[in-house]
Amino acid sequence: MNYFSSDFKLGILGGGQLGKMLLFDTRKFDIQTYVLDPSDEAPSKIACNKFFQGDLMDYETVYNFGKQVDVLTFEIELVNLEALTQLENEGLKVYPSPKTLKGIQNKGVQKQFYAENNIPTAPFERFENLDNLKSKINDLKLPFVWKCTEFGYDGNGVKVIRQVSDLDSLPNVECIAETMIPFKNELAVIVCRNPSGEIKTYPVVEMEFHPEANQVEYVICPARIDEKVAEKARAIALNVSEKFNHVGLLAVEMFQTNDDEILVNEVAPRPHNSGHYSIEASYTSQFENHLRAILDLPLGNTDSKVAGIMVNLVGAEGFSGDVVYENIETILGWNGVTPHIYGKKQTRPFRKMGHVTIVNEDMAEARRIAEEVKNTIRVISN
Amino acid sequence: MNYFSSDFKLGILGGGQLGKMLLFDTRKFDIQTYVLDPSDEAPSKIACNKFFQGDLMDYETVYNFGKQVDVLTFEIELVNLEALTQLENEGLKVYPSPKTLKGIQNKGVQKQFYAENNIPTAPFERFENLDNLKSKINDLKLPFVWKCTEFGYDGNGVKVIRQVSDLDSLPNVECIAETMIPFKNELAVIVCRNPSGEIKTYPVVEMEFHPEANQVEYVICPARIDEKVAEKARAIALNVSEKFNHVGLLAVEMFQTNDDEILVNEVAPRPHNSGHYSIEASYTSQFENHLRAILDLPLGNTDSKVAGIMVNLVGAEGFSGDVVYENIETILGWNGVTPHIYGKKQTRPFRKMGHVTIVNEDMAEARRIAEEVKNTIRVISN
Repeated sequence: MNYFSSDFKLGILGGGQLGKMLLFDTRKFDIQTYVLDPSDEAPSKIACNKFFQGDLMDYETVYNFGKQVDVLTFEIELVNLEALTQLENEGLKVYPSPKTLKGIQNKGVQKQFYAENNIPTAPFERFENLDNLKSKINDLKLPFVWKCTEFGYDGNGVKVIRQVSDLDSLPNVECIAETMIPFKNELAVIVCRNPSGEIKTYPVVEMEFHPEANQVEYVICPARIDEKVAEKARAIALNVSEKFNHVGLLAVEMFQTNDDEILVNEVAPRPHNSGHYSIEASYTSQFENHLRAILDLPLGNTDSKVAGIMVNLVGAEGFSGDVVYENIETILGWNGVTPHIYGKKQTRPFRKMGHVTIVNEDMAEARRIAEEVKNTIRVISN
Repeated sequence: MNYFSSDFKLGILGGGQLGKMLLFDTRKFDIQTYVLDPSDEAPSKIACNKFFQGDLMDYETVYNFGKQVDVLTFEIELVNLEALTQLENEGLKVYPSPKTLKGIQNKGVQKQFYAENNIPTAPFERFENLDNLKSKINDLKLPFVWKCTEFGYDGNGVKVIRQVSDLDSLPNVECIAETMIPFKNELAVIVCRNPSGEIKTYPVVEMEFHPEANQVEYVICPARIDEKVAEKARAIALNVSEKFNHVGLLAVEMFQTNDDEILVNEVAPRPHNSGHYSIEASYTSQFENHLRAILDLPLGNTDSKVAGIMVNLVGAEGFSGDVVYENIETILGWNGVTPHIYGKKQTRPFRKMGHVTIVNEDMAEARRIAEEVKNTIRVISN
């Protein structure tokens, strides 16, 4: 198959920032791209060959879009699975496969998959809906973590239940109750696999939390953990990847417990926030490797050239409207600092508006600069 | 001035590969871009906010385009200088300034500028046209280098004259005759300067020639030369930059003579082929730094993370038509190899269709892989 400067068409479901960054590499390789997204202001709109506005959860819309392309991928899991399955049955290359996505899209199914495949994960119970959970509340040990099984993202759909009344405001949807396990670190490993079976893992990264707010502040590559723990995390990620038999990227999020056990939290079968550092720090970025994987090209080197830290740029509290990046000029003056602005016109509290990568030969220096970046730039409105 | 996610508009004259690569960084920063190019198939077309088809040498076209933007830059020197001058007089920020471009666009004027500013360059004489040169042929020492002063690029418009009959096929245009100086190396330094006067230089790079074909095969960063020679080259490039008082990038091409003298060959006031390695090897690519400079933002770190080598992908002899990149899948499997396909549909012998960057911690290994790349990939037609 000749992809480069040809009539070959890659379809991407979703036109957000992940798609936008993926599109940079399709341009570098001169591969034609079609994008489907519900928003007319999607960040990807400007960088694809053809943009289609439409509902990603609608069977007809996704099916008709898929019929126009040669390979289909997605940058968001919330897409119509039946349409993908039908397209795959009709012979279209859909990567990752809807079979993989089916095991991931619903968190209850995903957790079940880990249990059935002996993949270490926190103990859990599945419930059809909240009423069902409430009726069995006496069997559950407080505190536990409530998670809705579908449509949750970026912390939405997750809540720590410390007392029964914490359940009051929750929606009556399918959910799981997960045992709360104290952990030292949240880790992630991105695994990359092509249809020919070539497989590579990126280094283990660490999510550093704000000591009080309990919010991820920095993604740090490589994780500042013991080499043996890192090896264990990579081995478990590879095992998860093998069991899902995925094509493309699989981001495996894990907990490192206080006893240095590794528990799988959840996975995403696509480029992931925890891999954004790779654009500047790695020999081959996660986006380029996702593209190489789904086109069955040889995978690129996943090693790092230098230490990399990523800081998310989210909308500041108290600001909604036309976005302004306060002090972005200041941080541009610091060594190894690269902002990535996603191109969303409007900010809202906690909306992901961009990220900043800090690279340096010296990890401690990168960490110091990252903290200054975090304390300096603000996403506000005018 | 607020550039990011705002109504600010950057205009770019020229929509070739240099503009295309520059546009990647405007997307990363979410800066609105307007592009003017004569070709409806310009590589930049897909990555800008608004594309205009038109003649870059036409006064009205360039002037009207300029009136729609807030800052104007170019990716090719062959643009209408009068229009730029008029726009600048009316208060538009044009970077580099038409005053700078005026000293560069015509090679006779450029050489004169070096002579007047005590910048070392090969001795030369200017001629109104070829007839004029022929009439003074007895004063010139053979061999010498004939160069037309305008509209030459990529080796067009340059010829070594070893005997008088070599002049026969040349056009009767303004030209210079330059003394042929034997040299060891062809070097280049890219200087970056913003309107506030911040200035940085990239490392000295080396163009390695094919031993027989006398054609540049590799651009190598850093140049494998004595540190003292590198310092001298950097100092001379800074001096040239200061004299031109430019804003944006200035690529300074130089000869290292057999006596380790440095002679300035020519300059380009824009991102340059000799800086393409910087996308993968440098902390900040030449394109991002051009953008930072013309927007008067702080300049990024010009140091390298790793050794970088660039190989140009030019159309193979004997092939014209729809392009095919033979064996591109093979080279993608090698460590640190990244192809950049410019997006031109048609190949012709020697047409610049893309480039390949090879990065590695070890320069000798990078050089070995670069040679394999050169010997493996071919730009042909089907």
